[in-house]
Amino acid sequence: MTSAFITFEGGDGSGKSTQLELLSGWLEQRDHSVVLTREPGGTDVGVELREIILHRKGFLAPRAEALLYAADRAHHIHTVVRPALAEGKVVIQDRYFDSSVAYQGAGRVLSEDEVRDLSLWATEGLIPDLTVVLDVPADVQRARRESTRTVYDRLEAEADDFHERVRDAYRRFAEKEPERFVLIDGQRPAEDIHGDIVERVTTLLG
Amino acid sequence: MTSAFITFEGGDGSGKSTQLELLSGWLEQRDHSVVLTREPGGTDVGVELREIILHRKGFLAPRAEALLYAADRAHHIHTVVRPALAEGKVVIQDRYFDSSVAYQGAGRVLSEDEVRDLSLWATEGLIPDLTVVLDVPADVQRARRESTRTVYDRLEAEADDFHERVRDAYRRFAEKEPERFVLIDGQRPAEDIHGDIVERVTTLLG
Repeated sequence: MTSAFITFEGGDGSGKSTQLELLSGWLEQRDHSVVLTREPGGTDVGVELREIILHRKGFLAPRAEALLYAADRAHHIHTVVRPALAEGKVVIQDRYFDSSVAYQGAGRVLSEDEVRDLSLWATEGLIPDLTVVLDVPADVQRARRESTRTVYDRLEAEADDFHERVRDAYRRFAEKEPERFVLIDGQRPAEDIHGDIVERVTTLLG
Repeated sequence: MTSAFITFEGGDGSGKSTQLELLSGWLEQRDHSVVLTREPGGTDVGVELREIILHRKGFLAPRAEALLYAADRAHHIHTVVRPALAEGKVVIQDRYFDSSVAYQGAGRVLSEDEVRDLSLWATEGLIPDLTVVLDVPADVQRARRESTRTVYDRLEAEADDFHERVRDAYRRFAEKEPERFVLIDGQRPAEDIHGDIVERVTTLLG
């Protein structure tokens, strides 16, 4: 089978989980072997790091935070993603380095370039074959989060203007690398969005 | 008071702990305000990371390990060391980035240059004013460890030839940067070693 590395990006409340599941099911029906995974937290070490990154109460130095995401990523790519790709599987991943670049860039302490370089070192330069960005305005994301949950992690708890900067970053990335990205209006019905994703994945898998 | 950043390097069993304590006491008697700290594990986050790095049972990808040390370092330097130096204190630290460069280089997966670059990014380029290397042959280090303990962490448990490569690395670093390093024969009596360190620290503090 053809291996492929497909990542999903977008704010919390953009509908990533729904689309990850729909795509995974679609691929499995067509006899692809699928690995559904995520960052941070896609390995045992990653679960511990995810806890430190997202749920600790105190201050975390910005470079330490970036390095923890990169550590989680290095271990995950080395032990989960690369082996799966080598076996011809399709890896569908909830967030990858574009998240780090968009979120940490939006935090305005580290530059997008240094965050990207760090991730590329961590993963020995593994770039996704396809990155799906679900584009939803920050206030709509917030309304969706508020309708389902009352507890938020460090990043979710940021104000709308932070999430709007993240959204802008994703839009810029998609414009800059149209061959890798597909930017999708996440406010449409889930089935329509799924249709667009399937179209692009069909092209990718030949 | 004059601030200074003094780091101690050498294998486990090289006598670092004894010399750190002696120097700290000597400085306090001369009215210096001293912060005695260490890496990994010099902060609350660092204690959690130290546990993951040194005591977990399973495989840890080499780049993930390097990134975890760097994350610990970034948070520690940002929240403990730089503030102390800004207040005119003398920071005495058990291990710093020379440890990462020596140990990870000895592990032969990552290059010394990439490990050093990572640490310099993590710390925004903080270089010690003085680095004391306690030079002890690997078999002597092992005999000392075995006389005091029966439980070892991941790095201590490595064979003598690994620890000899680490020792060689420290000797090379000291030769390359004589203005920053003092290389001391760690097999002499503790009081003699302390005397040599005090001489160098006296020059440093003017």
